[in-house]
Amino acid sequence: MLTRDLTTPALLVDADVLDANLAAMAAALPGDRLRPHVKAHKCSALAARQAAAGHRGFTCATIREAEGMAAAGLGGDLLVANEVVDARRLGRLVEAGHRVTLAVDSPATVVAAAAGGVREVLVDVNIGLPRCGVPAEEAGRLADEARAAGLDVRGVMGYEGHAVLLEDRRQRIEEVKKCVALLAAAARDVGGEVISGGGTGTYDLNTVATEIQAGSYALMDTAYAKLGLPFGQALTVLATVISVNLGGGWAVADCGLKALGMDHGNPALADGSSVWFCSDEHLVFSPPEGAALPAVGDVVQVVPAHVDPTVAYHEHLHVVRGDEVVDRWDVDLRGW
Amino acid sequence: MLTRDLTTPALLVDADVLDANLAAMAAALPGDRLRPHVKAHKCSALAARQAAAGHRGFTCATIREAEGMAAAGLGGDLLVANEVVDARRLGRLVEAGHRVTLAVDSPATVVAAAAGGVREVLVDVNIGLPRCGVPAEEAGRLADEARAAGLDVRGVMGYEGHAVLLEDRRQRIEEVKKCVALLAAAARDVGGEVISGGGTGTYDLNTVATEIQAGSYALMDTAYAKLGLPFGQALTVLATVISVNLGGGWAVADCGLKALGMDHGNPALADGSSVWFCSDEHLVFSPPEGAALPAVGDVVQVVPAHVDPTVAYHEHLHVVRGDEVVDRWDVDLRGW
Repeated sequence: MLTRDLTTPALLVDADVLDANLAAMAAALPGDRLRPHVKAHKCSALAARQAAAGHRGFTCATIREAEGMAAAGLGGDLLVANEVVDARRLGRLVEAGHRVTLAVDSPATVVAAAAGGVREVLVDVNIGLPRCGVPAEEAGRLADEARAAGLDVRGVMGYEGHAVLLEDRRQRIEEVKKCVALLAAAARDVGGEVISGGGTGTYDLNTVATEIQAGSYALMDTAYAKLGLPFGQALTVLATVISVNLGGGWAVADCGLKALGMDHGNPALADGSSVWFCSDEHLVFSPPEGAALPAVGDVVQVVPAHVDPTVAYHEHLHVVRGDEVVDRWDVDLRGW
Repeated sequence: MLTRDLTTPALLVDADVLDANLAAMAAALPGDRLRPHVKAHKCSALAARQAAAGHRGFTCATIREAEGMAAAGLGGDLLVANEVVDARRLGRLVEAGHRVTLAVDSPATVVAAAAGGVREVLVDVNIGLPRCGVPAEEAGRLADEARAAGLDVRGVMGYEGHAVLLEDRRQRIEEVKKCVALLAAAARDVGGEVISGGGTGTYDLNTVATEIQAGSYALMDTAYAKLGLPFGQALTVLATVISVNLGGGWAVADCGLKALGMDHGNPALADGSSVWFCSDEHLVFSPPEGAALPAVGDVVQVVPAHVDPTVAYHEHLHVVRGDEVVDRWDVDLRGW
């Protein structure tokens, strides 16, 4: 099958770029040094490629992601790096023989983990991002509570999400230093062997974490592209030009707000065209200076600004080499 | 079932508010004066309620929406108000006995309609929004081309999308006047009986259109709420508080970028809490001045800024009366 035979909008994954990204990360963080985050791609087939690259444990953001990974035979060591108040579905995975570790950051989530049948937890520590995580100085006490509830505390996790997209590398380094100091202190208080954290933007800067939770590196987006990381843009959205306005100098492609995560702003076009705006089912753009308008029926490649909420709109990832579709992977970890 | 038993994030539709919205619109634009747009809710069960309110024709943005509506027994008069370059799937609907009218705005889309087996079209006219539509002065010529290709031209359509969200009603009125003047001129040149256009923000201002394509009025969002329309907020996203930071004064709910269309910015919280930011699976907020922080396990209701791309992330609409879930509708028109 050729890309021109796909119904658009359609997610394309460049097989060679993906392979190069997986290889580059596996070289930098081999084996268990990386715990790939599946929330970025929500695709167990892609996770299987990460497993083949040597990474045995995975990070999940939702219960559904953990269930899907287990169903795909990748439930050997799943970390749900998020708080839940009802852990019963995760407990059923544990009962079925999968290894599931859950983040906890409060007495209520400790109680939920134990009541739901989860046996292993990480204490989630707030290391600067105003989101989840217990204050670092309270981490040890929460670990004691978890152990008293019968849970095995494997260690700590913390996410420097406010630092991962800082474009200035020196600034990123400085911010990460502060974060990991907090994480290291909490790790001493909590005990255990695991210090989990980091992301694509800090995979080589977070030297305290025993495992890095990067996910975006596999497919990438325009936000991470600004950081000059050694990962290429593997993901694009194929779109068809459905209307051209010669007088106005614009064209319209069939890739709108329901095909693109928009929280980081407009996507880019691979050919350098200017994006004017997106609406529900449309992307309006004009060609680069000096270039001709496309024709109705032409296809364009749209580069998302944020990979995670883009993939979550789609049913499939089409793996391509040039114009050829070599595989189709289900985005099987969507929903909740 | 009670709302507290739902897996969150979950879309809730207030049954009474929905009923009131449908009744208010059916009173203003009875029967065929409204051609409800299904792109806003992507739910054939909700469309069936609109049909029960007296509207026999529907507007679709995608081929999948038309297929889903036909499969649900609502294919009596479907308008695909969008250009497509491959109309074969629509032709198969026509062959199966459904009525499908397709927008065309270029010789290429006329050829595609005829080749695909679609028999009826509307000439899509650009009336000011830089998106699809033939320039008004060329509409008559394109209608001739369509008739020469064997197509039945039912009339024209045009969408004043740049006017529908203007908050100042007087400004909205002025802008709509310019748009409908262009549409009326094109209608004279094209012939046919249908003049289709408008949206929730202009449903009572576009007096040229024989049918209004409003969709958002049924569920509403914070963007349309600013216009003071006689439609209430029927849609919310139920979310669970999973983390609370007492020192920092914030709480975190499990409703993030994969549960919310973000192109219109952050959502609101129904209780007046301040939304700090959303990330992939999280919404961080602080309670209204003087109110206490919620507790882990509490639920909150999130009001989306833009209804269409919010619903498109979800599998179900849960119809509720107070705390009781009285029905569950599939969001069955998603994808392409």
